[in-house]
Order: sequence, then structure tokens, then C-alpha cells
Amino acid sequence: MRIGRLGEFGLIDRIARRLSHRRQGVVIGPGDDCAVVQYDKRRYQLLTCDMLIEDVDFTKRHDPMLVGRKALAVSVSDIAACSGVPAHAVVSVGLPATTTVRYVDKLIAGMNRVCREFNISVVGGDISKSEKLIIDVCMTGYVEKNRLVVRSGARKGDLLLVTGPLGGSRKRRQFMFTPRVKEARYLTQRPGVHAMIDISDGLIQDLRHILRQSNAGAFLFEQLIPVSSDARGLSGALYDGEDFELLVAVERRLAAKVLKLRPRDYFLIGEITDAAHGLTIIDKKNREHVLRPGGYRHF
Amino acid sequence: MRIGRLGEFGLIDRIARRLSHRRQGVVIGPGDDCAVVQYDKRRYQLLTCDMLIEDVDFTKRHDPMLVGRKALAVSVSDIAACSGVPAHAVVSVGLPATTTVRYVDKLIAGMNRVCREFNISVVGGDISKSEKLIIDVCMTGYVEKNRLVVRSGARKGDLLLVTGPLGGSRKRRQFMFTPRVKEARYLTQRPGVHAMIDISDGLIQDLRHILRQSNAGAFLFEQLIPVSSDARGLSGALYDGEDFELLVAVERRLAAKVLKLRPRDYFLIGEITDAAHGLTIIDKKNREHVLRPGGYRHF
Repeated sequence: MRIGRLGEFGLIDRIARRLSHRRQGVVIGPGDDCAVVQYDKRRYQLLTCDMLIEDVDFTKRHDPMLVGRKALAVSVSDIAACSGVPAHAVVSVGLPATTTVRYVDKLIAGMNRVCREFNISVVGGDISKSEKLIIDVCMTGYVEKNRLVVRSGARKGDLLLVTGPLGGSRKRRQFMFTPRVKEARYLTQRPGVHAMIDISDGLIQDLRHILRQSNAGAFLFEQLIPVSSDARGLSGALYDGEDFELLVAVERRLAAKVLKLRPRDYFLIGEITDAAHGLTIIDKKNREHVLRPGGYRHF
Repeated sequence: MRIGRLGEFGLIDRIARRLSHRRQGVVIGPGDDCAVVQYDKRRYQLLTCDMLIEDVDFTKRHDPMLVGRKALAVSVSDIAACSGVPAHAVVSVGLPATTTVRYVDKLIAGMNRVCREFNISVVGGDISKSEKLIIDVCMTGYVEKNRLVVRSGARKGDLLLVTGPLGGSRKRRQFMFTPRVKEARYLTQRPGVHAMIDISDGLIQDLRHILRQSNAGAFLFEQLIPVSSDARGLSGALYDGEDFELLVAVERRLAAKVLKLRPRDYFLIGEITDAAHGLTIIDKKNREHVLRPGGYRHF
């Protein structure tokens, strides 16, 4: 049987079940935005890795500065989704022998931008010969134990917020997005943030991860969803990937407070229900529709 | 200018110089077997990553169990080379859509073997579509501050030891080697271990890394070099890669003690000199020859 029959998420589930991860000190193993391990009395360490491959995630025509920037930024976004602060990274690079030194210099310059912005150090790496350009970044971060947010904590009645307009990012914003570290950290200053994920595979697909791992359902308000000017309408906002905005399930009172204090940074889009409700959207005429599955999948 | 003109190590130097790694808490940045960052009062954290690519490091005909095993074992070997103990890993995998579930299961089984042997947990990862199979492992480990060994501490008069026979491992042993965690930990129970590296690119090339980073020279005794039965004679032992034995510069008194107590685990092969001496080998007739450069390079 080929892996295509399992699908990307079936494959991830299967691997996660089979992997040996019984060591002491593992708080969250495979299957969330980051792995979480014990660090010190006050904090956990976060670990995440993300691989970009030429002709899958970018092409030779893309500015290498932006490719290098994105390679680190996607990992920063994963750290943000757990409410953490990034710290160190190691980078494995596969390079065709024909790559120019100028190209590599630009890749590095793009990485350095993210490092400066978020106070990250690239402390090591590995270089290998490869037919296609490959960049795999592994990043560590830290989060206070009482501020860790994972995918599995959403509760009935929580409000769903996103940190920015959605859709159409495949064109341009996928290389230019700002990882939402500040926005996540602002939210978790107070208790009441129950679940969080960064939107990399599309709003609906990533919301489904939260719902499945929280054993919950949700409804969205069509009129409230912030649609990016790059998106082809609502469908783009729901199903396009690589927005790298955060999707957050927040206790109602805290959500109301945040929406009032920071109306430009957080957008109300829906509400968590019990699992039996499934996932629906309420249109402008107040009719409720079941949302079809969809979003980006590798297989 | 293409990267081939810089060569692999020229390229690594250039990248290491340009990378931003000024964050507090970085003890050793790019250019050693592992990166070293502050952890707690007593210990440092080690970080390393290693990428295996189909048709560069292995082919489809190799048993996927052995490929999975090697993917983790090379990182364990890097942790060992800093005298550390491995802890957690995250794994990025690029897979062709035609890969079978059976193949992936075997890869995982190979990884689990290493996890069980060294008490490592694979805590997360990333899966991507790819034309060639790619496995990149990032591993963390810990080492007591007074037991950290890097490449740069070799001193004139130190003896050079290796942990096993060398050469010919491209055939078979590259997939079957045991990372030398125990051997490194045994050595660093006492002070006097000045520099260490794992032999991945060939004895001579990896010794040159120690010599350059320690500003030292060395001579080897041809008669003492343990040549693997798989190697094509001395040349294989000197220049073949992927032995994953440790090469260690040890203060004389400690070296003598270790060689007496554990004659099967450590082999004396030479001595550290000042840099002006260069790198030579003393043959069976007591004639000294300058060693030509050589070993495995990606570019």
C-alpha cells in the first residue's frame, strides 16, 4: 500500500503511534505544532522542525533572501503557536553542486533577518550534496509552564479568533508573513487561552486539527471572517494554506476583552461547540452549512 | 562563482562567519560536531543535525530498517563526540508519493532500535513530498560542563587514540556502526581529554579539523593504526569515511591508563605536535612522510 492511500495526516498518525517516545520528560510528543519537553522549574523547552524543498515549497525563480527568511519563519510560527519564544536553530541544507556562492549568501542574509527580528541564533548545521535545494530548520524555544498552549484544550463556548486576514498567501505573503510571536504572547499573559495552531494548511483543515484533538465542534460566521485582498473570496480564506496567522480558542470573557483592547490584531470568526455539532458556517442570511473538508496536503 | 570552488569546508566556514549567532547562552556555535548552549548550572545542552539523501547517502536497495537506524545513529555519534548523552530528536522526512507504508514502517523500526538502545525519544517531525527520500534528524543531548570536549583543545604531547578499526565502512559498517557514547563517557570521567571528533569523512580529514581548530600538528604511527578487515589496506583506514569511531587527543598520563585498562576499546595511533610540524606518518622502517590531504567531501 502506498502512503497516498493513508493521506498525509493518516501517515503522521501512524508514524506518531509507532515512534518510540517514552523517555521521561516528554510533555507533548509528535502531533502538535511543537514537541514539548521539561526544561526547568518554570519553563518547558519547545522543539520544532520544518523542511522546505525546491519545486514543492519554492522554485529557483524565488528570491533566495525570501526563501531563507521563510525557512526560519515557519519554525518561529510553530513556536508562536505554542505561545513560546524562539531561541536557537540548527539548519540542514542540501545543495546542488551548481549553486552559486551568491545564492547561498542571500539565503543566509534572509535567515539573518529573522534571527535579528526574533533574537534567534543559528548555532549549527549540516551541508549535503543534493539534486534539489533542501532547507530543513530545527528550532528550540521556551515557554513558561502556565503559558503553554497546545491544540487539544478547546472547550464548548470558547470563541475562535484569528490574528489576521486569510487566503491568497500562496502568491506573495507566504514569503513575507510575520510570525505571530507577539500576538500569542499578548494573549497568554492571562489565563483563558485554551487551544492554538498556526494556519499553514488552510483555516478549515487546521481548525479540524484543533477540533479533533479537543474532541469538539465549531461554527464560523461567514460575515466575520477577514478575507485577505489577495484571496479569491471566502473560499480562499477558508482553504488556502500558508497564511501563518494564529487560530486561537479563547475563553469568552478573555476573548471579549482582547477584541475590545486590540481590535486590529485579533478577529472573532466563530465559536467552539460540542463534537456532535461538527463544523459549520453561518452565512449572511443566517443559514447554517456543513463545511466540506479541504486544504493543503502533501499526499 | 559556484560553491564547488570554495569546497565543502570553505563553504561551511563562509556560512558560519555570516550567520547571526550572537544570542546569549551560545557556548559553541557552528563548526564543531555539536552546537553547545547553556542549559542549567551543571550541564550544557548539545544540538546537532544530520541529513541523509537518497542516492547520496543510501539507495532504494538498502534495507530501510538500516537507513532509519543510520539516520539517528549519525546524530548520536555527534553527541558522543562532545562527550554527551543523547535525549530527544525531531525528524523531517521528504517522501516520494510512491513510497509504500511498509517502507515507512521499516524506517521507523530502524529509528526505534536506536531510540531504545540510547534512551532517546523522537518527539516530533515534519513530513513533506519529495522526489528523493530525505531524512533529516535534529537531536538534543546533555553534557556536564566539566566533561564537554570539542575539537579545539588538543595540546602538544597529547596522545591520539581511536575507538576501533578504520576503513572500508562504505560497504557495510556505515549502516551497522555503534555510536561511541559509552567510550566517550568512560574517557571523560577524569580530566585530560582535550579534543574529540567522530570520524565521518575519513581519519586524515577529521584529524585535520582537530589540528586546524587546535592550532597543532601531529604524527601517526603506521604500525599502530587499526585497519578494518573491510578496508583496502592502510589507505582505506586513513581516507575512507563513515567509520564513526571517535578520534581523541588525550593527555599522556590518562591515555596510558586508559590503554592499559581497556586495551580492546582504545587504540593508540599517534601524537600531537606543534603546528609547524604539520601532519606526518611514520612508516614501519621509521621513515617520516607528509600525509596528503583527502577524504570525503560533498563539494
